[in-house]
Amino acid sequence: MKRIDIADVADIATGAALLGAGGGGDPYIGRLMVEEAIRAFGPVQLVDVDSVPDEALIVPTAMMGAPSVMVEKLPNGAEAEIALEAVETAVGKRAHAIIAPEIGGLNAMLPIVLAARRGLPLVDGDGMGRAFPELPMVTFNIFGQSISPLAISDELGNCVTVRTVDVDSAERLGRQIVVAMGAAAQICCYPMTGAEAKRSAVRGTVRLAWEIGRLLRVAREQMADPFEALLTYLPTTDYYKHCRSLFDGRIVDLRREIAQGFTVGTVEIENTAQARISIQFRNEYLVARQAGKAIVIVPDLIAILDSETASPITAEALKYGQRVRVIGISAPPILRSEAALRVVGPQAFGFTDPFQPIEEMA
Amino acid sequence: MKRIDIADVADIATGAALLGAGGGGDPYIGRLMVEEAIRAFGPVQLVDVDSVPDEALIVPTAMMGAPSVMVEKLPNGAEAEIALEAVETAVGKRAHAIIAPEIGGLNAMLPIVLAARRGLPLVDGDGMGRAFPELPMVTFNIFGQSISPLAISDELGNCVTVRTVDVDSAERLGRQIVVAMGAAAQICCYPMTGAEAKRSAVRGTVRLAWEIGRLLRVAREQMADPFEALLTYLPTTDYYKHCRSLFDGRIVDLRREIAQGFTVGTVEIENTAQARISIQFRNEYLVARQAGKAIVIVPDLIAILDSETASPITAEALKYGQRVRVIGISAPPILRSEAALRVVGPQAFGFTDPFQPIEEMA
Repeated sequence: MKRIDIADVADIATGAALLGAGGGGDPYIGRLMVEEAIRAFGPVQLVDVDSVPDEALIVPTAMMGAPSVMVEKLPNGAEAEIALEAVETAVGKRAHAIIAPEIGGLNAMLPIVLAARRGLPLVDGDGMGRAFPELPMVTFNIFGQSISPLAISDELGNCVTVRTVDVDSAERLGRQIVVAMGAAAQICCYPMTGAEAKRSAVRGTVRLAWEIGRLLRVAREQMADPFEALLTYLPTTDYYKHCRSLFDGRIVDLRREIAQGFTVGTVEIENTAQARISIQFRNEYLVARQAGKAIVIVPDLIAILDSETASPITAEALKYGQRVRVIGISAPPILRSEAALRVVGPQAFGFTDPFQPIEEMA
Repeated sequence: MKRIDIADVADIATGAALLGAGGGGDPYIGRLMVEEAIRAFGPVQLVDVDSVPDEALIVPTAMMGAPSVMVEKLPNGAEAEIALEAVETAVGKRAHAIIAPEIGGLNAMLPIVLAARRGLPLVDGDGMGRAFPELPMVTFNIFGQSISPLAISDELGNCVTVRTVDVDSAERLGRQIVVAMGAAAQICCYPMTGAEAKRSAVRGTVRLAWEIGRLLRVAREQMADPFEALLTYLPTTDYYKHCRSLFDGRIVDLRREIAQGFTVGTVEIENTAQARISIQFRNEYLVARQAGKAIVIVPDLIAILDSETASPITAEALKYGQRVRVIGISAPPILRSEAALRVVGPQAFGFTDPFQPIEEMA
């Protein structure tokens, strides 16, 4: 067991921004929210999933919607409690611990806010080992966990509880509800027992994010190369061990819009030799292509980092002219199984490219 | 107490079609559904609101959406039970009786279906004394009853439970959810106690619909004039006593579309002297104008009847070339109060015309 205190939050936020692969919402806002929550409600216990009792109720929480909107329409913290209570009422049980459905950006931080507010522990793990844009795209679903009841709440205090016959209906209905709430809302869903969490969670990802953030900060403090620190550390992890620097350049083209509740678009990056890569995103970076050929593709991670500071840049923070470095990182093996690829692989995003692990790409 | 049996259903459906003022959904489908439900589950007891215990739970149920869609996407009956169970779970109490939120068309019939399926009595009354297109437009709301929890279910078995801070948020969110479910869904909402129903219901409207249907049928059977029968009977009622024939003619223009979950448009009717009236609708007929001047306006009722049979024609069943008679009918006095007019008067529909009771119009 570890304790998340105010001094730890910035590091976790930085690491979660990297693992968010461009999505999951603005990590800076998430950092401020967690710091405020810990200041008001005290630090949060981080527990291993194995320490959770088998019959205890574990509830994932996140923002759903367009990250571009979340930046301007901040959660106040109370809406997560409303959504959690709605799930608890529907399930007939009080939550024992909170877990992140995705360890990406803001959505890695909001579970800590809720845990602090309710005085509950946070489970060290998540349902993706990164971030994805849609509700079905979590290991909880891949392992057969029902998404229902899904509670969706807004900053006004409105709360909608959704029970559906399948996860796709939950995504479809939930997305409409989120759009009606202003394209960003807080959700609690996939309520599960401790036993179920042990079976389906991607383990240890909060500590991984924390460590990534820590070593980037230390490298900067010591005037060392943060990229080197990162590319030295990731290969020592179980999940992210295949990684490499893909491209250095400047953003020369950026098409981005908010469509159907997502931040979607393409960014083009050019280097001094006039070579280019393009990266498509739907909340998250999905595929990087060079000369039309994929060089890294979902579920493997793409990170776009500021080329000076190595700060991860989310899709909604991309700007024309930014100098960036693009890094490709292997997804946790749990996401690369055949069953998982059906839900989070290239075809799930409408691409015809087959999935090819980054370590097997040229 | 009265019993609704299969032989009674057609008359109630006809009367409800008239009181639906063009909306509330296809009464023929409602009739078939009630007949099938009574055949399978037995007749339904119709009880006066005064006979309901003060602390008993009364639940209104209806279809929400575009009547044009309801005609093609029939409820199967089971979705109403799912919505009712969701409300019961949220309230923590079993329903004692069912009530119609509106005594119009299909929506006057679906509460009988649910009452039959669950073996519950139907309260003789409703929340409008007619039909209206939006959730806030009921006496339950006008008298301060909360709409939450609002449960919305579809024919697949999906169910969404909405708790909002105000009724307008429920309408806005509910409408989006209904659109996402395919523009027609079953709802249960405004759960209330017997004491609250006694305060806010428009009483006796099931029997009124029933009697209207009966006398139209008898007039036809006896080769008598059904319009005369209708215009002789309505003045003897407490609610609908001011009524008159407004226009006879043929439908010469019809603009109708499904927009944001409503059936909206305008119908123009011309008589042999080339005079015209136009009637605007949003699910229900809202205002009839002659030479630009309103001759009857919400909440007073407008009915368009087949000029031969006096069968009420709903807005989605209007056809070019139909020969029709238009009748104006006073709304129940409860809808004409200042508080009610704010919710169901001309301004609530975006008209600048003031409300003027039909009996005071030329």
